[in-house]
Amino acid sequence: MLLTFLSDYGPGDEYVGVVHGVIASIAPDVRVVDLGHGVPPQDVRTGARRLARALPFVPAGVHLAVVDPGVGGSRRAVALRAGERWLVGPDNGLLIDAAERFGGVGRAFDVGASPWRLEPVSATFHGRDIFAPVAAHLALGEGLDDTEIDPAGLVRLPELRARREGDTVVAHVLEVDGFGNLRLNAESGEYSSVAGRPVTPGRTFGDVPPGDLVLYADSDGGLALAVNGGSAAALLGLRTGDEVRLDAG
Amino acid sequence: MLLTFLSDYGPGDEYVGVVHGVIASIAPDVRVVDLGHGVPPQDVRTGARRLARALPFVPAGVHLAVVDPGVGGSRRAVALRAGERWLVGPDNGLLIDAAERFGGVGRAFDVGASPWRLEPVSATFHGRDIFAPVAAHLALGEGLDDTEIDPAGLVRLPELRARREGDTVVAHVLEVDGFGNLRLNAESGEYSSVAGRPVTPGRTFGDVPPGDLVLYADSDGGLALAVNGGSAAALLGLRTGDEVRLDAG
Amino acid sequence: MLLTFLSDYGPGDEYVGVVHGVIASIAPDVRVVDLGHGVPPQDVRTGARRLARALPFVPAGVHLAVVDPGVGGSRRAVALRAGERWLVGPDNGLLIDAAERFGGVGRAFDVGASPWRLEPVSATFHGRDIFAPVAAHLALGEGLDDTEIDPAGLVRLPELRARREGDTVVAHVLEVDGFGNLRLNAESGEYSSVAGRPVTPGRTFGDVPPGDLVLYADSDGGLALAVNGGSAAALLGLRTGDEVRLDAG
Repeated sequence: MLLTFLSDYGPGDEYVGVVHGVIASIAPDVRVVDLGHGVPPQDVRTGARRLARALPFVPAGVHLAVVDPGVGGSRRAVALRAGERWLVGPDNGLLIDAAERFGGVGRAFDVGASPWRLEPVSATFHGRDIFAPVAAHLALGEGLDDTEIDPAGLVRLPELRARREGDTVVAHVLEVDGFGNLRLNAESGEYSSVAGRPVTPGRTFGDVPPGDLVLYADSDGGLALAVNGGSAAALLGLRTGDEVRLDAG
Repeated sequence: MLLTFLSDYGPGDEYVGVVHGVIASIAPDVRVVDLGHGVPPQDVRTGARRLARALPFVPAGVHLAVVDPGVGGSRRAVALRAGERWLVGPDNGLLIDAAERFGGVGRAFDVGASPWRLEPVSATFHGRDIFAPVAAHLALGEGLDDTEIDPAGLVRLPELRARREGDTVVAHVLEVDGFGNLRLNAESGEYSSVAGRPVTPGRTFGDVPPGDLVLYADSDGGLALAVNGGSAAALLGLRTGDEVRLDAG
Repeated sequence: MLLTFLSDYGPGDEYVGVVHGVIASIAPDVRVVDLGHGVPPQDVRTGARRLARALPFVPAGVHLAVVDPGVGGSRRAVALRAGERWLVGPDNGLLIDAAERFGGVGRAFDVGASPWRLEPVSATFHGRDIFAPVAAHLALGEGLDDTEIDPAGLVRLPELRARREGDTVVAHVLEVDGFGNLRLNAESGEYSSVAGRPVTPGRTFGDVPPGDLVLYADSDGGLALAVNGGSAAALLGLRTGDEVRLDAG
């Protein structure tokens, strides 16, 4: 069974490799596909969105994800069943959006005290000590003996909702990608300015002159804001969760 | 058959992982080797150089490369046959240097309307929707039914040529690597200054004191400029395509 | 046999992929696990620490590591036997800490003139031309014919030792991770300030308010210094090898 892995560990440290090593120790023939480790540190919302976008293009398997600002605290470690897939990671909202792409969470297990975990469990590296061993054993097709929990009690991220004020839509930045493009939570529309600057609707970056702002549908179909040849995040000084005003007319 | 993948997607986002996921869905037993995803965004020239340098050290297979500023516009999507290899990517010059390492482009196909592509095709993520499925099916040994096109009509990058002005050679930066070392398009020679600063010829960085400029033959044999313990790109404020003056005597 | 690979090549360039390509050419069925390529350029000490921390979690195999400021000079290229493992890389101290996790260096070989190396050997890319071919052939189970050398003559990094000055411990930064957290060479203790700033002992980042300094045991059990939601390295202006004053009371 395929095992995928997404995190905020960064692509450069040894943390990602150590998790691969733990998986290879337990399940040497399981193929592991990295889904990116450049989630901004502790940005659970961006991690959740990336995981949910990626999984529909990935074969069913065990999907390990670790963006875990509450590591070492009281948050639970969980394995969730959604369709034919297993999602493994912290109970902080990271896995829910992805589960909903496959019919939602069917069953949920608290794996914090898994017999598969590596002892001693560190306070800060549950990716290595708990999540990787659980994911690897699941990828071998082994069954869980852990406590089943109520999916309704899983932690969810607060929802960000755009609102209308006259001709203005007040939206939020849902995510900043590696190019500085911003994903917004607004519907597409006839907007003439964003954050007080003129903007042009387009199909792609090249539809506007270099340095200009363009509003377009990203590869997932959502409304996104970019600068041709630049970073919209840097130009506008915006981060995930920030409000953005979109003006019509 | 081995499949390799180079892009400007950056190592951190989920884009690289999604492409791996699409490949794993179609060709689960094909091995995929990443050839780097840190090409500066939309820098086709650097991507072309890296691909051409890497492939002679990589077994023959299907070589996917995506640096694609024209995505969603009128540029063609192509699969090129060079020796025993397939090169798959946009028709913007990215693949040509690599093909020439293997005898040039033997046959070329327009795969933009490939029956293998994922529908609906997005405007901005052809790596996922067109190039990855085409590469994966080719790696399975399947045959192409797409329109064959004339290799002579493929897009090529404009050539940068160094020129001589008296004792000065006016060269260009062909590439900036991750350490800020600059690859130049000049012949090695008896240069005493670069961009107005003193420079020493050497075999490697350690041949000059920390902070000094050194001209050396890089691992590919081309002329390169580095700072021992620093970034020549930052020190000199230079980017790909910029002119650099090399003075003799 | 598993082959692992750690370097300072950075995750974005083609260098890592070229090494993978060389390995795939020689040993197409050997699995390669990356242990991270974001070691700060030429920072042998950080590379040595990361390798030593990672390997206990990785199955025995051939462990290739390249952080090599002396490339092209007189430093030796070596393959070291430690327990059931092979360590391959430059003789500059990079491999020793890892070997000591497995009983120390049992046998050592100078592989700089290996019959397996790729000719012509470049002056600057021994990862491709010497280390990768040697590691790949070892991973196939082939035997070495190279000159055996005395393990006692291997290069070791100078040891950094914390010292006590009254109520103050003068420690060193052993490493900066990707989040800007600092690993120190001091024992844990009752410290009230670090580098002149107040610090709180904790189990994890979340034990202090955002922006505050916390001293904690990292996932390896060593003393580490972090800022909740920030970079301790940036806040304190510290790099690997720098001194840090820890004050009690």
